[in-house]
Amino acid sequence: MIESEEIQHSDDLQKPLQDVQRLIERHRLVEHLVDRQEGARQELVAGLVHKQHLAELSSRLERMHPADIAYILEALPLPDRLLVWDLVRVERDGEILLEVSDAVRESLIEAMEPKELVAAAEQLDADELADLAPDLPREVLQDLYLALDVEEREQLRAAMSYPEDSVGALMDFEMVTVREDVTLEVVLRYLRLFDALPDQTDQLFVVDRQEMLRGTLQFERLLVNDPELLVSAVMRAETLTLHPDDKADDAAQAFERYDLVSAPVVDGQGRLIGRVTVNAVLDFVREAGEEDLLAQAGLAEDEDIFAPIWDSVKNRWAWLAINLVTAFIASRVIGAFEASIEKLVALATLMPIVAGIGGNSGNQTITMIVRALALGQVQAEQTNKLYRKELGVATFNGLIWGGLLGSVAALLYKSVALGVVMTAAMTLNLLLAALVGVTIPTLMQRLGRDPALGSSVLITAVTDSGGFFIFLGLATLFLL
Amino acid sequence: MIESEEIQHSDDLQKPLQDVQRLIERHRLVEHLVDRQEGARQELVAGLVHKQHLAELSSRLERMHPADIAYILEALPLPDRLLVWDLVRVERDGEILLEVSDAVRESLIEAMEPKELVAAAEQLDADELADLAPDLPREVLQDLYLALDVEEREQLRAAMSYPEDSVGALMDFEMVTVREDVTLEVVLRYLRLFDALPDQTDQLFVVDRQEMLRGTLQFERLLVNDPELLVSAVMRAETLTLHPDDKADDAAQAFERYDLVSAPVVDGQGRLIGRVTVNAVLDFVREAGEEDLLAQAGLAEDEDIFAPIWDSVKNRWAWLAINLVTAFIASRVIGAFEASIEKLVALATLMPIVAGIGGNSGNQTITMIVRALALGQVQAEQTNKLYRKELGVATFNGLIWGGLLGSVAALLYKSVALGVVMTAAMTLNLLLAALVGVTIPTLMQRLGRDPALGSSVLITAVTDSGGFFIFLGLATLFLL
Repeated sequence: MIESEEIQHSDDLQKPLQDVQRLIERHRLVEHLVDRQEGARQELVAGLVHKQHLAELSSRLERMHPADIAYILEALPLPDRLLVWDLVRVERDGEILLEVSDAVRESLIEAMEPKELVAAAEQLDADELADLAPDLPREVLQDLYLALDVEEREQLRAAMSYPEDSVGALMDFEMVTVREDVTLEVVLRYLRLFDALPDQTDQLFVVDRQEMLRGTLQFERLLVNDPELLVSAVMRAETLTLHPDDKADDAAQAFERYDLVSAPVVDGQGRLIGRVTVNAVLDFVREAGEEDLLAQAGLAEDEDIFAPIWDSVKNRWAWLAINLVTAFIASRVIGAFEASIEKLVALATLMPIVAGIGGNSGNQTITMIVRALALGQVQAEQTNKLYRKELGVATFNGLIWGGLLGSVAALLYKSVALGVVMTAAMTLNLLLAALVGVTIPTLMQRLGRDPALGSSVLITAVTDSGGFFIFLGLATLFLL
Repeated sequence: MIESEEIQHSDDLQKPLQDVQRLIERHRLVEHLVDRQEGARQELVAGLVHKQHLAELSSRLERMHPADIAYILEALPLPDRLLVWDLVRVERDGEILLEVSDAVRESLIEAMEPKELVAAAEQLDADELADLAPDLPREVLQDLYLALDVEEREQLRAAMSYPEDSVGALMDFEMVTVREDVTLEVVLRYLRLFDALPDQTDQLFVVDRQEMLRGTLQFERLLVNDPELLVSAVMRAETLTLHPDDKADDAAQAFERYDLVSAPVVDGQGRLIGRVTVNAVLDFVREAGEEDLLAQAGLAEDEDIFAPIWDSVKNRWAWLAINLVTAFIASRVIGAFEASIEKLVALATLMPIVAGIGGNSGNQTITMIVRALALGQVQAEQTNKLYRKELGVATFNGLIWGGLLGSVAALLYKSVALGVVMTAAMTLNLLLAALVGVTIPTLMQRLGRDPALGSSVLITAVTDSGGFFIFLGLATLFLL
């Protein structure tokens, strides 16, 4: 998507939102007055003021960057959001829909007629359309597909066929290509035929007649070298290439490691089929980081903060249900020791401490290891080293913290034996946490699963039930 | 840092590590044989093979990108890491130290002589030196400072004066500037005087004689426009500018929103003082995301997975201590109701369920709201809407899940009253979680603090103690 000259980049990221909110407030105020007054005259005046505010708002939106409008839409409650959305020209709707979060996109698409949706989506490139497609109604998609030419259809089909976390999903098709047997002078003249170049073009792709990638010509090299030189003399022949089936995360790591702005994507035969740009990577990294955070808190996806209660319930229920199941199991473990608790009620008071420290420590271990696995820093042969280290940390923490809490318990309940059991139980639960904290993610990895997924729930389940069992079990054996 | 031609970008990100590991293994094997054998001849032969492996390893490293070497160093256990580190040419040490994680950097710097450190750091630009400086011994810093020229000293002082999360910390000083009253042809000829341009140069900065920023000249515009045109006719005058005191996170959001590759940094008077590039932003976003994840699990910073046990203990103790304090408080809340538990031991069995659901649900709420606050999507006036929504979700979940678990409890213990108390306690604890989940982050924000910091510990503390108090309190009132 090539930007028009008039679109403004805002230095103050909050300002576009504040401007729009002020205009909406004035507009709502007038609406309110109209509602309360009678008589044709007042209504006429109010109607005019009303229209003036909307016109001002509309022209303000016109000059805004689509990403700024997306940001504003996300921050407005539903009625205001739809008011602003109606004022945006339909040709701009497509790029804005691409920028908003999934939850807000849904609320906007719901408010649009199929005809509007087709008009909006027609403005998009094939790779952008592929991002939007899953959220569009089926009949809209069919209309859109019929409106595309053969090449675009092929691109759309290709882009939609790649899984979400693959390079194919990050790829766009906006490449500028040149041949290797021409001089830089020719390339410079060729570029002057363009009105504009695709966003984030930092290099041209050098291909032969079969579209096989021969190398890349960085703008830097094009600019610092003698124009009489041939492209083949100046281009970088050994260039990093991506494949559409590569993992998006690997591509992101390559962009970070090598400070890339764009990279070519080639098929199995080495034919150039697209490119990945750093802005796609940046969005991916930000989103992946956010998804991790949301997942850790048990949210299925990002929420529209102004969404109806029911949407939030749906987004959160799975995690609550799983946790209730594990809490119920832990509760049944306690239930098995009710006789012991009846004899020594202090056990009920102290047991959450034993379970809690195991959960916290286990989560620390698992976070560390998931991270190291994701970065490829741990190989299978090194698992033993990890076990030794984590068990060492657990023993140390168990003796220190367990000893401290055990002493406090001994003082509180005037029973050295209770203190010793407490210390032993805390140490054992920490060892359990370390053991399971290393085993779960490395095992998931070996089974080809994502080691991050569900690790936190699982470890807490183990350390809760395990902690109760160890503490109440030891107490039953040695104290009663 | 300008890259040499020979440095390779590796398509397969794991390969450099695997190659090095294979060479180290062979080397260690020979070492092992030498240790076990006697006689001068064997030793001589083994020594030669030994040297050959190291030479091979060394030449392999020579061709690797510094980021690849950094990755390898992070993934190797300490003895192998130091073996590889010794083989890297000292002139490359600086850039590699910049790329490794903090924990691994420490282990490398510890192994270096002050003289080596000075030689390594001398290769760096002022902004890079500023990143490294906090980890260097004082005497090394002094030597380095004396070796800098006046401009570099000024840049180093400036770069070190900005806080870690500011634009100043992301900034570098590698800008190419031009005047506005020359033609594009002149600019093109000027650029040919360079051997190379700074990494990620996508635009030139247009300044006047006082170094005031007048605009930016994108390479794209330089290349597509007629060379006879003046820079002033083609440049972008209304360009996004950053200030060194701006928050790094705001800059990152601007890069994402507007798909920037670089942006100028100006001082209060509008004088150009540096630039921020997308690679600095990408590193920042990745690190910020990781820090959030680590912080959520209670790790002070990233760990070197092969670090000694003691380092890990230090990195994790603060969180464990805080959690033990809150667990102890929760335990004292239970202690206050020991008489009730003695009479009805089922309370001890069921109470962790009530506390647990509050913690899970509260963490969901707080994660949502911290995110919305970070993106500027929630204003103070909208807090009421958030309370209404979260309390609504809590009521719903409380009646459903609380009702379900209450029924199970009633069946298990054959007491309808117990089931009703359980349902009521779960609903009330969910409401408490919603209330506190909205209040903590919005309050922190209003007090000018980071709303993410410590929110999770705080809410779990409240819902644990609160859950026990509500459940045991209600039971004492209505069941005994």
